[in-house]
Amino acid sequence: MTSLRERNRNRTLRDIEAAALDLFEQDGYASTTVDQIARRAGVSSATFFRYFGSKEEVLFVNEQDAVDELVALVAAREDREASLAALSEPVAAFAHSYLNDADAETRRATRLVMTTRELESRSMRMRLRWEHAVARQLAEERHRAVSGADVLVANLAIACLTAALWLWRTDQDDIGDTTRKMFAQAMSP
Amino acid sequence: MTSLRERNRNRTLRDIEAAALDLFEQDGYASTTVDQIARRAGVSSATFFRYFGSKEEVLFVNEQDAVDELVALVAAREDREASLAALSEPVAAFAHSYLNDADAETRRATRLVMTTRELESRSMRMRLRWEHAVARQLAEERHRAVSGADVLVANLAIACLTAALWLWRTDQDDIGDTTRKMFAQAMSP
Repeated sequence: MTSLRERNRNRTLRDIEAAALDLFEQDGYASTTVDQIARRAGVSSATFFRYFGSKEEVLFVNEQDAVDELVALVAAREDREASLAALSEPVAAFAHSYLNDADAETRRATRLVMTTRELESRSMRMRLRWEHAVARQLAEERHRAVSGADVLVANLAIACLTAALWLWRTDQDDIGDTTRKMFAQAMSP
Repeated sequence: MTSLRERNRNRTLRDIEAAALDLFEQDGYASTTVDQIARRAGVSSATFFRYFGSKEEVLFVNEQDAVDELVALVAAREDREASLAALSEPVAAFAHSYLNDADAETRRATRLVMTTRELESRSMRMRLRWEHAVARQLAEERHRAVSGADVLVANLAIACLTAALWLWRTDQDDIGDTTRKMFAQAMSP
């Protein structure tokens, strides 16, 4: 059971997140300040900084959960090969669960990240974490250190996912289907 | 003909670069300061900042040249398709010219970038520039805007290059050959 303290914490966190998304969308990410976010969320700046290290971090609050979920889906895949083909389903399922099944805030945050120039580097760091996590998972399944083949397959899989996310910024298709299409195109001669 | 001023400028720039590489390799990137680099190069900190915005930038001084060269090689490729196969040769040639044919400083800088955790984000930004430049080149050849297929092929090609660079950190093979191998593996079923 969630304690009152826990529920308050979550409510404050979600209030800050909603306030930040509203302001980023309305005034632009670059010109929004932490003070403005805190004021709109009805909290002090000190409270903001108890939850987030910077305004950037509001958009990446689910980063670790996403990495964990990606790894869990890859680990549970049916096709046990360490091949690009074997990663198509788990990565498509990840994209679907990360964006289609997610709450509206996650979708709004992801769209902001994909379309804000100032967030490019931070977003690349997330992508790098996905690549590392997938390569590590493939290596662990074989009880050995990460090899060049693991790195290559992981990089290719995340390249497909990134291209699908790029398309997702502007189209309305299911991100899972788009991801599957990107894998199919990558594997066609 | 190069003017004396131009030659002095280049000499100073190279002195700073050599001093920075020495200190980064010897004491680690994180614990080296701009003051230490300037002192070792025999210049003032003010002079350092006339050439470089930060100590990080010393390692990325050739970034724009590299992007230009990659695009030129892609633009001049024999296989005119916008496919992964068509990019194998130009990207392998780029890797070779960027690292094997380059001066020792470029190789030392690249090895530092590949093995220094603090430089990961900055290094990802370079990779992003390569991806964008290749996708844009493929689109321009077809006189249209960048498509999902362009982004996918560019991302896959740079995924192969990145895997080759990852192997290059520790092996002694020709980076061009390693890059070709990564493309071949990526395209095998």
